[in-house]
Amino acid sequence: MITNIRGTRDLYPEEMRRRKAFLAAARGVLDTACYDEYDAPLLEKFELYTAKSSAEIIERQSYVFEDRGGERLVLRPEMTPSLARMVAARRKQLPSLLRWYSLPECWRYERPQKGRTRNFLQLNVDLLGSDDIRADVEIIDVAFRLLVAWGVDVGKVEARVNDRRVLTSLLAVLGAPPERGREIMRLLDEREKLELSEFSRRLRELGVDDAGEARLAKFLAGDDLLLQSADAERVRTLVAKLGELGWRVRFDPTLIRGFDYYTSTVFELFDTSGEFSRAIFGGGRYDNLVADMGAEPMPVIGFGVSDVAIETLLKDQERELPFIADERWWVIPFSVSEVAGADSVATILRAQGKPASVALPPYDMKRQLKRAAQEGVAKTVLVMPEEWARGEVIVRDMEKGAQQTVKLETLVPSTSLRQTV
Amino acid sequence: MITNIRGTRDLYPEEMRRRKAFLAAARGVLDTACYDEYDAPLLEKFELYTAKSSAEIIERQSYVFEDRGGERLVLRPEMTPSLARMVAARRKQLPSLLRWYSLPECWRYERPQKGRTRNFLQLNVDLLGSDDIRADVEIIDVAFRLLVAWGVDVGKVEARVNDRRVLTSLLAVLGAPPERGREIMRLLDEREKLELSEFSRRLRELGVDDAGEARLAKFLAGDDLLLQSADAERVRTLVAKLGELGWRVRFDPTLIRGFDYYTSTVFELFDTSGEFSRAIFGGGRYDNLVADMGAEPMPVIGFGVSDVAIETLLKDQERELPFIADERWWVIPFSVSEVAGADSVATILRAQGKPASVALPPYDMKRQLKRAAQEGVAKTVLVMPEEWARGEVIVRDMEKGAQQTVKLETLVPSTSLRQTV
Repeated sequence: MITNIRGTRDLYPEEMRRRKAFLAAARGVLDTACYDEYDAPLLEKFELYTAKSSAEIIERQSYVFEDRGGERLVLRPEMTPSLARMVAARRKQLPSLLRWYSLPECWRYERPQKGRTRNFLQLNVDLLGSDDIRADVEIIDVAFRLLVAWGVDVGKVEARVNDRRVLTSLLAVLGAPPERGREIMRLLDEREKLELSEFSRRLRELGVDDAGEARLAKFLAGDDLLLQSADAERVRTLVAKLGELGWRVRFDPTLIRGFDYYTSTVFELFDTSGEFSRAIFGGGRYDNLVADMGAEPMPVIGFGVSDVAIETLLKDQERELPFIADERWWVIPFSVSEVAGADSVATILRAQGKPASVALPPYDMKRQLKRAAQEGVAKTVLVMPEEWARGEVIVRDMEKGAQQTVKLETLVPSTSLRQTV
Repeated sequence: MITNIRGTRDLYPEEMRRRKAFLAAARGVLDTACYDEYDAPLLEKFELYTAKSSAEIIERQSYVFEDRGGERLVLRPEMTPSLARMVAARRKQLPSLLRWYSLPECWRYERPQKGRTRNFLQLNVDLLGSDDIRADVEIIDVAFRLLVAWGVDVGKVEARVNDRRVLTSLLAVLGAPPERGREIMRLLDEREKLELSEFSRRLRELGVDDAGEARLAKFLAGDDLLLQSADAERVRTLVAKLGELGWRVRFDPTLIRGFDYYTSTVFELFDTSGEFSRAIFGGGRYDNLVADMGAEPMPVIGFGVSDVAIETLLKDQERELPFIADERWWVIPFSVSEVAGADSVATILRAQGKPASVALPPYDMKRQLKRAAQEGVAKTVLVMPEEWARGEVIVRDMEKGAQQTVKLETLVPSTSLRQTV
């Protein structure tokens, strides 16, 4: 039997209901925050990614191929380059402030493993057109509100915030060659996993001398003049403002984030419930994003979060996506003579927004009721010859197992009588 | 500037609102008809398509490529093979009757033209597990109800219905070699565009002799014993039952539909408003679908319809997708001192499901009001120092240009006071 591609997911109705709950919760938060949804084609030109994407993603983890016309295409591994392209193309016509979000499917050619699939849904939220600290506050506030809407226990979530420029100032005083900056940042990112001596040795390799290491230690201990800079003060203000909104946030001067395109604010949301805290997702400010596409500059702050990350977090927290299943009604005719009656009952129910279907032949009430019970149907309506002749049907509550003979009119709420009958 | 791929569509917020209206209308009909939504990965193995898809689609119009591991993949050009694969894989665990739908993005490598884009959304609706005529009635009824929900004038839409077996019986008596069957069907499909002499000449080429042509003429005139067969009678019953539900339907014994996989019922919905009627979309019964994937047989009837087809039809009918825009509220603080107040106003509004955002700096009320007017915002709430001190805000109706000073409490409906304050 032919299967799906390894590392990809089929969404059977049960998984699809969870996906829809994820989408509905996200849209609930973002629509009421006046964010506009957009979308772009899943295939993009290869050149779109060579400019700005993390080299590793595009070179090793993306689906790249040529179409029949010889054009080199990429199955998008992330949405940000498409966003930049779309905004740049209509920079002059679009409003000067944009609150945008998207819920694209993305693809990475990765070794399948826990919490990683080759196709995933990634919510992208961006606020374009303001470099004010209030924009940073809003984006991180929205991130927390999304977690709440998805059912996450945010009491166990902490946002860590930094400004890339704080780290840049630090690198400038460590005495290492400028081209070693990225490697030093990466080493800082890993330092908690390393022995102190190993950390020291690798600092030396990267050109940081004794004085540099001493300065770094001071910085890491939170006792350095660099942490009094205007950039650092801005992070402290951001932390304070988010605290006022009720969220757990702290200044982490060593927070880096992998992508090269961030220019100042970076943040990550951590799940602090386990022994080690684990990053859930993050984002930051990339003020060169639109200008790099050849359009007039436009400051941007945003983040991306995948459905897989949220599912994993919810599982770890033993919580569930808030989800209200529609109560389904099955209308069951006694025989072919009651089918037209059953159709009209279903029409009346649907006109009230109630999901209703009419049983298909063979008309065997016992078997139909058994199936309804197996499939978790909430209510059945039995259309029987004698009752129908009197204008009545039998409504059965499948959970309670109780049933009641009712006049057809009682299925129609009085307010909607004019519309449905 | 890097652009999107030729023939593809970006969905800016305005187009995305239309897309969302299309999706919401479709889901409204299908959810209340107890259909379950599913989804599959956009990439599938090449072998999935070689078995059953129309050869032209897979050989000439699909994006086919090899991944980094050398596996041959296809960007799905249609959803049906993925459906067959998913159902076959869980044939034993799934209920014996399935009402399923999906709203996948599909890709075709086509020459871009009016009404054709390389990426499009295709709604797929299938009813699996019943070969009863009631299943055929339900599927075509759902198709009409979807058109109504999308805002189409269905008074101008006619469904044409046929049974493949009627045509098969016809072919058997025309005297042509069996392997010419498909070509004869295609010729029948084109006959209205051909001169009678040309039609005759081509029939001869395909092995239909004088007697065969006379029989065909009788058949086309509706005067042939084949049109009294049980298969033909079943189509007539279907037409009658759909007529009782209020839809325009007729028996078209020459209706074919391109896909090879249909086994009996085929139908197409035609827009009859122009000089020539134009097919909008169609579907049919493919009872071998699941068995062909190596699982226990399961009868299926279904159809697919793209958003592009519906958009084109609505444009031709000069109608619009029913769409209710959310009324947006912009909360504008007079200065930085009123920002916390503005935040709480926005929180109160959002708790009632009202989309609300707080203006970002610079705090210049005149400019903010101008932007709100340009962007079609419904209401603005002005948070002014003196009014705020009295517990009041100014609510401005942007369309009427009228404004009113109100107590903060009046923004909170009494029933939700406990939840929001």
